[in-house]
Amino acid sequence: MSFSPLDSDLLGPLFTTECMREVFSERRFLASMLRVEEALARAQAGVGLVHPDLPGAIANIDMQLLEPAALALQTRLAGVPAIPFVKVVQSALPPELAGGFHYGATTQDIVDTAAVLQFRAAIDLIEADLRTTIVALLRLAEKHCETPCVGRTASQHAAPITFGYKVAGWCVALADQLSLLGPLKRRVQVASLGGPVGTSAAMGEKADAVLAAFSADLGLTAPAIAWHTHRGRIAELGSWLAILLGCLAKMATDIVHLASTEVGEVSEPEAPGRGGSSAMPHKRNPIGSMIILSQHMAAGAHLSVLVTAMASAHERPVGAWHSEWMALPSLFGLAAGALHEASILSEGIEVREDRMMRNLQMTDGLIFSDAAMVRLAQHLGRAEAYAVVEGAVAQVLSVGGTLQGHLIERLPAYRDTIAFAFEYGLAVQASAARCRAAVQHARRQIE
Amino acid sequence: MSFSPLDSDLLGPLFTTECMREVFSERRFLASMLRVEEALARAQAGVGLVHPDLPGAIANIDMQLLEPAALALQTRLAGVPAIPFVKVVQSALPPELAGGFHYGATTQDIVDTAAVLQFRAAIDLIEADLRTTIVALLRLAEKHCETPCVGRTASQHAAPITFGYKVAGWCVALADQLSLLGPLKRRVQVASLGGPVGTSAAMGEKADAVLAAFSADLGLTAPAIAWHTHRGRIAELGSWLAILLGCLAKMATDIVHLASTEVGEVSEPEAPGRGGSSAMPHKRNPIGSMIILSQHMAAGAHLSVLVTAMASAHERPVGAWHSEWMALPSLFGLAAGALHEASILSEGIEVREDRMMRNLQMTDGLIFSDAAMVRLAQHLGRAEAYAVVEGAVAQVLSVGGTLQGHLIERLPAYRDTIAFAFEYGLAVQASAARCRAAVQHARRQIE
Amino acid sequence: MSFSPLDSDLLGPLFTTECMREVFSERRFLASMLRVEEALARAQAGVGLVHPDLPGAIANIDMQLLEPAALALQTRLAGVPAIPFVKVVQSALPPELAGGFHYGATTQDIVDTAAVLQFRAAIDLIEADLRTTIVALLRLAEKHCETPCVGRTASQHAAPITFGYKVAGWCVALADQLSLLGPLKRRVQVASLGGPVGTSAAMGEKADAVLAAFSADLGLTAPAIAWHTHRGRIAELGSWLAILLGCLAKMATDIVHLASTEVGEVSEPEAPGRGGSSAMPHKRNPIGSMIILSQHMAAGAHLSVLVTAMASAHERPVGAWHSEWMALPSLFGLAAGALHEASILSEGIEVREDRMMRNLQMTDGLIFSDAAMVRLAQHLGRAEAYAVVEGAVAQVLSVGGTLQGHLIERLPAYRDTIAFAFEYGLAVQASAARCRAAVQHARRQIE
Amino acid sequence: MSFSPLDSDLLGPLFTTECMREVFSERRFLASMLRVEEALARAQAGVGLVHPDLPGAIANIDMQLLEPAALALQTRLAGVPAIPFVKVVQSALPPELAGGFHYGATTQDIVDTAAVLQFRAAIDLIEADLRTTIVALLRLAEKHCETPCVGRTASQHAAPITFGYKVAGWCVALADQLSLLGPLKRRVQVASLGGPVGTSAAMGEKADAVLAAFSADLGLTAPAIAWHTHRGRIAELGSWLAILLGCLAKMATDIVHLASTEVGEVSEPEAPGRGGSSAMPHKRNPIGSMIILSQHMAAGAHLSVLVTAMASAHERPVGAWHSEWMALPSLFGLAAGALHEASILSEGIEVREDRMMRNLQMTDGLIFSDAAMVRLAQHLGRAEAYAVVEGAVAQVLSVGGTLQGHLIERLPAYRDTIAFAFEYGLAVQASAARCRAAVQHARRQIE
Repeated sequence: MSFSPLDSDLLGPLFTTECMREVFSERRFLASMLRVEEALARAQAGVGLVHPDLPGAIANIDMQLLEPAALALQTRLAGVPAIPFVKVVQSALPPELAGGFHYGATTQDIVDTAAVLQFRAAIDLIEADLRTTIVALLRLAEKHCETPCVGRTASQHAAPITFGYKVAGWCVALADQLSLLGPLKRRVQVASLGGPVGTSAAMGEKADAVLAAFSADLGLTAPAIAWHTHRGRIAELGSWLAILLGCLAKMATDIVHLASTEVGEVSEPEAPGRGGSSAMPHKRNPIGSMIILSQHMAAGAHLSVLVTAMASAHERPVGAWHSEWMALPSLFGLAAGALHEASILSEGIEVREDRMMRNLQMTDGLIFSDAAMVRLAQHLGRAEAYAVVEGAVAQVLSVGGTLQGHLIERLPAYRDTIAFAFEYGLAVQASAARCRAAVQHARRQIE
Repeated sequence: MSFSPLDSDLLGPLFTTECMREVFSERRFLASMLRVEEALARAQAGVGLVHPDLPGAIANIDMQLLEPAALALQTRLAGVPAIPFVKVVQSALPPELAGGFHYGATTQDIVDTAAVLQFRAAIDLIEADLRTTIVALLRLAEKHCETPCVGRTASQHAAPITFGYKVAGWCVALADQLSLLGPLKRRVQVASLGGPVGTSAAMGEKADAVLAAFSADLGLTAPAIAWHTHRGRIAELGSWLAILLGCLAKMATDIVHLASTEVGEVSEPEAPGRGGSSAMPHKRNPIGSMIILSQHMAAGAHLSVLVTAMASAHERPVGAWHSEWMALPSLFGLAAGALHEASILSEGIEVREDRMMRNLQMTDGLIFSDAAMVRLAQHLGRAEAYAVVEGAVAQVLSVGGTLQGHLIERLPAYRDTIAFAFEYGLAVQASAARCRAAVQHARRQIE
Repeated sequence: MSFSPLDSDLLGPLFTTECMREVFSERRFLASMLRVEEALARAQAGVGLVHPDLPGAIANIDMQLLEPAALALQTRLAGVPAIPFVKVVQSALPPELAGGFHYGATTQDIVDTAAVLQFRAAIDLIEADLRTTIVALLRLAEKHCETPCVGRTASQHAAPITFGYKVAGWCVALADQLSLLGPLKRRVQVASLGGPVGTSAAMGEKADAVLAAFSADLGLTAPAIAWHTHRGRIAELGSWLAILLGCLAKMATDIVHLASTEVGEVSEPEAPGRGGSSAMPHKRNPIGSMIILSQHMAAGAHLSVLVTAMASAHERPVGAWHSEWMALPSLFGLAAGALHEASILSEGIEVREDRMMRNLQMTDGLIFSDAAMVRLAQHLGRAEAYAVVEGAVAQVLSVGGTLQGHLIERLPAYRDTIAFAFEYGLAVQASAARCRAAVQHARRQIE
Repeated sequence: MSFSPLDSDLLGPLFTTECMREVFSERRFLASMLRVEEALARAQAGVGLVHPDLPGAIANIDMQLLEPAALALQTRLAGVPAIPFVKVVQSALPPELAGGFHYGATTQDIVDTAAVLQFRAAIDLIEADLRTTIVALLRLAEKHCETPCVGRTASQHAAPITFGYKVAGWCVALADQLSLLGPLKRRVQVASLGGPVGTSAAMGEKADAVLAAFSADLGLTAPAIAWHTHRGRIAELGSWLAILLGCLAKMATDIVHLASTEVGEVSEPEAPGRGGSSAMPHKRNPIGSMIILSQHMAAGAHLSVLVTAMASAHERPVGAWHSEWMALPSLFGLAAGALHEASILSEGIEVREDRMMRNLQMTDGLIFSDAAMVRLAQHLGRAEAYAVVEGAVAQVLSVGGTLQGHLIERLPAYRDTIAFAFEYGLAVQASAARCRAAVQHARRQIE
């Protein structure tokens, strides 16, 4: 345990991926800050604001100089990591170049732009895993397009569906999230360069040219105005990640229940040592889904911090900015971990068709009560049909027998109508139609 | 005080608008449910599933029958308002039509679609007020494009800006939110019609046609799959509202500080009785901003509920759906109220240019320390320039005098460079350039 | 739907109790404010600060004058309800008394003290329902102290317990909350009376005497210092309510799963119309638990608002105070509703001992794997025992048969040890011992 | 930047203390788990359940074997760190002892009890720093008991107070929190030992004796029943930490405003390099308060996770437990860091009495409007007094002059009454009385 399990050498691999840990490592952050300063120097050299050798000199700075722990004391004093960073780099540059370093920038410019570079890399990781997961789930949905299983509402058996239909729902939700990523990337991959109060005053009339070149060099967009204290897009990014965690949690909620002992319709993929218990050799715990659920429980809370932090004062905030650091990187870490679990589940989940059928049959036909009621209503009217079915249901529950039997006994004239309602075929057909349309829709959406 | 101040006859008008209260009234909700049932019946009559007279009969139901308090007891038993609603309507329909009422639908279909109709009306209200507010703020930004004022960072004077530049920042943030509304509307204005488990099984092969006609009748889109337990777009809508509250809170944070006694650069618009104190006749409290800030404090929390509620089980959830009702309507209520306050502020805020100038001058030139440092760095290098300025600053703080004076004393050779740095013109010019570009950008975005 | 379902005539009875709605009604709030002013006048008359007839005149004010909707417009202007309230009352008092009305008080004094009176009444309601619920659950625990059922961990069957043991856990948690209520009441039932900046300056040396008499008259404690901007105890109260909702949600989580179709070990109490479905006559949805779960999902979010609102500026806050109104009354409303559902569940939950036994047996002895492993470990060492049991478990899962059978086949020499491990008696005995001790503990705690 | 800044080598020292980082280090966690197993073995050896040499052998395990990164892969598979931990330790024990290791325990017993040991150490650290901070603030309050300064409400000047009175408010709030720590410690310093389903079935009749000895050995209390899924006290602990952060944020909110350029009444303690700006040599940013505010913004969100996680299923939860790890250690880290900043502030804050007086005088007497109104009301009645003062206030604001002058002009007969109202002495006296009483109260409370 460290403060966050995401950062723990012991627990980290349980909650996030190695790649994502690398993206949010301090080394990477410091390298990104240096890259940002280099881009700034290059843009400024291009318009003659700084010496043309400066960008190259920055690029050649030895990363060994930027040892996180060594910068920490000064960071603690200054309140931001950019101040000691600037000092160390400056002192490592040739004196004739040092004067132009960090020209016209403020610490938040460098830290925010470096963070955007990290976010871009992080989004790429998530996009790839999300696509893989959806593709695997689409295959799963197609495979089980016509596999009958219980549809459940409010924790109770409701009516038959197919397993593919259920999986198609997961696909549509995830593909929907993926479809938002293009516009979202354009909105958040924006550079920051405004100097102390965002006006780039130090660069005079060259400000726009520098901002354009700086942004282009980093593959980012130039902002319409400094966003030091306009953080809506940061909250948007957090919102997308939190909602992604929500989509994965919906899937995990389903799986945990389907994998429970009494239901037993699916199992998480087997892996040696996975899901065992220190005390109970027979356990096969749904670890993947469990981790996703635990991650989701923190998602809304982290997002709320980003919303609260939007009340930033004036040109640069008093604390609000720092509080983003406690939420957004964690959301990336959680989302990456949850997605990794989901991708494993989507590839390897074991489906027990026999158990699905057994569960469908366990209520002696009650699961067809809606179908029976709907069919009978066309002959008897809705109120009477409801009453008849309700009576027969009560009989099943009290004295046993099947719902179909009791209904035919009550309404022998409608024997065929009743029998028709108890066919799996209709439910399967409807579910499969919905499943196929949804799969097609999702496939289009992710292309 | 009721449970929520939004619903209070006493406090409601302080926190939200009359129009928004009407949209979320129970009457409106029940009328929307009836409208949804009518659309369903019409779509089903179109394909021969129900009697052609049914839609008309539904439209003619006397709303007096649907008395909220009368439905409440059954709602409490059933756990959802749609069940008693269906019973009451059904019993008011001619017996030969009643059988076809609510055919193939489930309660969540009706409630969710009715809610979407309310959301649509609510979004329209917000869109109009948001546009009005932005337009007024754009005028304000243009008017004060060159009005010098203090730029503040971390609660301290930093460097001069213009008031128009500050307002332009508010505009860009709000216009950015407005620009998201088009796509968002397309994403959330979606009908729900899937029956108990979302597969529309009762409608057999006519399901797609009914869903299409039903959605079209209501001016909504048909979903790719039932969204009973896929609630990402609901969370997205909440996120948009929460972020809007965040943008308004940023503006309110600035105003509260600018309106504070010592700063005194702006006042909220005067209105008889507004902002007074029961104890202190001289008070002119920034009530509008205060209300916005209080509303924003609840925004992130409400949003987090929507994210948490995404972990919905199977085909219809166990509680998660109900918890949305505790968050999303409140977010609409809060956003409407905050926007109303913001629109009043944007039209009538009083700007004190004299106080802005006085505050700029109160630090004896320290506010130009960045400008001085940047100019001197080009001659002395950044480190030396920083040290010289730092020394002169210390002198101002300890023994008085102006920063310009102390700098010239230390570096008489750079008298002109130094004098140049202390010109307001440069800061104003830079701020005005940013302001104009931002105003133009925002204007394009809201068109 | 209104903004909050708690306030809805339609949905309110589903989510909270009539008594709690009355406590938080506007009438009650206005009457409480008047009561507070009366107590203030009496305390001040006692030391000669105001006319001795004033308290009586205040007590005789016609509540009809204080029509919420009529006060609303001025409330909207003033930003707080106390300002128009003071004006209306003042104008209804005889001129010679009016001058002393509200003497030395500020709006927040009156509103906060009135709110505390409401909280006191609300806590009393909750305390009574909590006690009733615990007492009923204690009976349930005792009744099922030795009723064997499945113990579940990570959604899987783990080892046998008794149902009484499970219920005893709920009891201990709720009794623990109840035991905190005494100290909590002492901490929050505190009067507020400090005037504009909390120093009671207007009352000079009589301030302490007035504060003491005022507090005593209302049955409250005098604060150590004005708490206009020190809101820790408000957050504490919210925390207690949120944690109570958490305890109830734990119980509801268990019940929803136990009541699910496949598990079927309990049902929520039958009531005509309760838990039905508009589409499915056979459904018996666990509405009570579902409502509790939905309420709990909002609990943490509301609490977070109270924590965030603690950052109040100076002597009276800018928005933070208003935001409490969006959270604390709702927490009371939610807790009352959840507790009401819990009390119904605790009295009437139907327990199916046969289903409990059937579920225990459904895994062919796997549920005793821990017991077998522990017993064998004493002979074979933990590692070997684990390996043997793991092997036998795998055999049960792949080829069938019972765990006991496979173990005896592998270790015929330990036949007796093995047989011993598969006795329910041991698990029942252990569970019953824990259950009895816990019941005793909880009983002591609530006395 | 790592995922959490608390864990970052670069940013960690800015946000938390070295001591707290050590408490939550992985080494410490693993050592605590080992300590817990040792206590378990000793308790079991005492009743003859395991070999008497086992506790000693456990105590002698080489901590080098428990390398976090080496355990991580198995942790990832198992879903909890205790499973690989048990395996590694077991294989390092003499074979004849290994069989008794971890006897009758489940992973959650070990992890939760180890976490409680960490929490105890963490609480001790916080308690010490909290006491130090309060003591320093009490001194500050006493020192400035009679230092006049502006009382502010809703961001506006309201009436005079003393600085000591303001500080006394901070003291009372913090002392109040400290006074809760004794009972809270008793509630959370509880051992966990129940085995797989909490019933300690494997230990048969010796369970109680083992639990008692185990708890006593660790200096903890034995629980009334297993708390694997009853997490109210965990949420309580989080709530206490979040509210502590709230108290500190109140103080920081005041300081940030008092230290703002226009107000200038206090400065954070000077330290070389502290609060500087990379761009602006004159800045003296209130870093300490800023950090506290940023930490507080995350506090409510973390707490909400703990409340949400209370909905734990059955005997051991599915994800809820894991999500606690994302919130509670972070709250400790944040609280420690915020308290550290607060202790520095409390010792070294610089108070500018001259600026306080200057600000008091800047409104030409308006700050005495309440005092004047209250005094005049005794002669003229409240309504007339209010009107007169309001008129005079308007005159000050429009044409200048002092409030006292304008009032005397309007009411020459009340010259003395008016003059009396404008004496600082009364406000100072009242504030000082409140301050002294509060200091005394707080001092008693922390003894």
